[in-house]
Amino acid sequence: MSLNRFSIPVAQELKAVEERLATQLNSEVFLINEVVQYIIQNGGKRLRPLLTLLSAKLAGYQGEAAIKLAAAMELIHTASLLHDDVVDDAGLRRGKPSTKSKWGNSISVLVGDFFWCKMSQIIVEHGCLKTLKVVTDTITRTTEAEILEITKHSDFSVDEEIYLKVIGGKTAILLSACCRIGAILGGVSEVFEEALKRYGYDLGIAFQLSDDVLDYESEEEKFGKHRGSDLREGKLTLPLIVALRSADTKESHIIKNSLLTGRIESSDLKMVLEIIHKYDGIKETRRLAKHYVERAKTHLDIFKPSLEKESLIALADYVIERDE
Amino acid sequence: MSLNRFSIPVAQELKAVEERLATQLNSEVFLINEVVQYIIQNGGKRLRPLLTLLSAKLAGYQGEAAIKLAAAMELIHTASLLHDDVVDDAGLRRGKPSTKSKWGNSISVLVGDFFWCKMSQIIVEHGCLKTLKVVTDTITRTTEAEILEITKHSDFSVDEEIYLKVIGGKTAILLSACCRIGAILGGVSEVFEEALKRYGYDLGIAFQLSDDVLDYESEEEKFGKHRGSDLREGKLTLPLIVALRSADTKESHIIKNSLLTGRIESSDLKMVLEIIHKYDGIKETRRLAKHYVERAKTHLDIFKPSLEKESLIALADYVIERDE
Repeated sequence: MSLNRFSIPVAQELKAVEERLATQLNSEVFLINEVVQYIIQNGGKRLRPLLTLLSAKLAGYQGEAAIKLAAAMELIHTASLLHDDVVDDAGLRRGKPSTKSKWGNSISVLVGDFFWCKMSQIIVEHGCLKTLKVVTDTITRTTEAEILEITKHSDFSVDEEIYLKVIGGKTAILLSACCRIGAILGGVSEVFEEALKRYGYDLGIAFQLSDDVLDYESEEEKFGKHRGSDLREGKLTLPLIVALRSADTKESHIIKNSLLTGRIESSDLKMVLEIIHKYDGIKETRRLAKHYVERAKTHLDIFKPSLEKESLIALADYVIERDE
Repeated sequence: MSLNRFSIPVAQELKAVEERLATQLNSEVFLINEVVQYIIQNGGKRLRPLLTLLSAKLAGYQGEAAIKLAAAMELIHTASLLHDDVVDDAGLRRGKPSTKSKWGNSISVLVGDFFWCKMSQIIVEHGCLKTLKVVTDTITRTTEAEILEITKHSDFSVDEEIYLKVIGGKTAILLSACCRIGAILGGVSEVFEEALKRYGYDLGIAFQLSDDVLDYESEEEKFGKHRGSDLREGKLTLPLIVALRSADTKESHIIKNSLLTGRIESSDLKMVLEIIHKYDGIKETRRLAKHYVERAKTHLDIFKPSLEKESLIALADYVIERDE
């Protein structure tokens, strides 16, 4: 997924973020540089820096600090991916072998820690206590949500409400924080800060729901993960939650067994997909994602028209249209 | 190892730290509370809070913030123990099953992250940017040192200099930060802050060297780890580095093979211990630890006599006399 067409108002700043990431992560320890290069080269969408930069500009901020903070927000994301690789026992990340599968658990944990440290250094250096509070509260909630997700593993009673809480903490809160930090940089009043914060949150929910759909629907080469990864990892996402609501006993068993075993043949995946479709699991998830996208956009109503605003609106639409 | 007799000047504050740890770590997520309770109950020496509190008092600080920050410093330590459990694949921690062996890698990683987040929240709430900088720089260096240690795993060319660098980053820098944060609380001038910082660092080196000795010499029930754990985990500590300097080819092979295989019978451990003793590996490590303890104490010369100073001096002596 390339976000280039939404990046136009901040294209130069995004380039500076890349440079910042490369220099900031430089270490005396050789292996760290090697891992960093592998991770940075494997890229990622840079959605979090993009949101930070667009929000800062929308809030009227033009200075250098946005670049530093945008890089810091990407570091939070990358750090949690590294730890997630250990938690999910993931073999692939962005279509390539994960750090964990290349260097092992220890390096994934410790380089994740290293990214987190570097992020903290950037934000402390920036010196704004409000931003520091937003960031630490955000990573705390993210971590709690990840632990909650683990405890809800193979808990078939998880409903839409609990699920939305988990993805709120896992994904939406960080995107929300990116937008909010942009607003804080601009020094806008509470109502504008709140609007950007809410935009980011709703966008995040839509983003994760769309990811859940893509996990069952996408072509592997584009999505960079094996199709049905969530099922294989025992993750009960919304398409399954919707299907389980209406499934009969036999269908329920098929879904639950697949979630529990982890070893899934393509015939199992096909059966589960049929049940999901029978009960509109994908359609319903897409509908909800669309709802969040529309709400995200309305939060921006209070801002006057601008290139940045246009980009944020187009980005929201794209989040649920993408196929990768 | 009970540090009670060094805690007298701050006994009440240490109790408050315990309460703070319990309340601060409270979470909506049930499993987090369960893990937290297990870890808090398993205790630990609370060396970091003790150093923070004694240093703050020595620096003339009497307020509440020392308690918060002392708790935060303990959280840094606990978070890195949790991650170390994954890195070292440790089965025992403080004589009981490690979090990792009880709940698995995922929980060890994520609850470690959670502790780190909570620590950040405390320090951000405290609102002193200098303290924030000391903490983030410290955890960055600690993480780098841990990665360095992994890359030097089974690197038999590691000499005393590199080794001291690794344990400086892994252990000493955090103890040094505790003392420095106490000094910052007291608002003392640079020279006193530097003295406490150096005291903590030298104490930390002595502490780790003494740990290295205990790993080969201690009675298991007291030390809370299996004897020879370092050898089993392939860790080249100073007693072995000293022995390797003078060992003949056959003896060298015995040490190196033990470090490489990880599966060590008690007869192997006995052989390695004989070689260590033959070349004064334990004696030499003890001698160096003593040197650092003496230097640590001289840093405190500039402070006038006080109960706190007495405790810090006695603590330094104890670090190398302890048998657990």
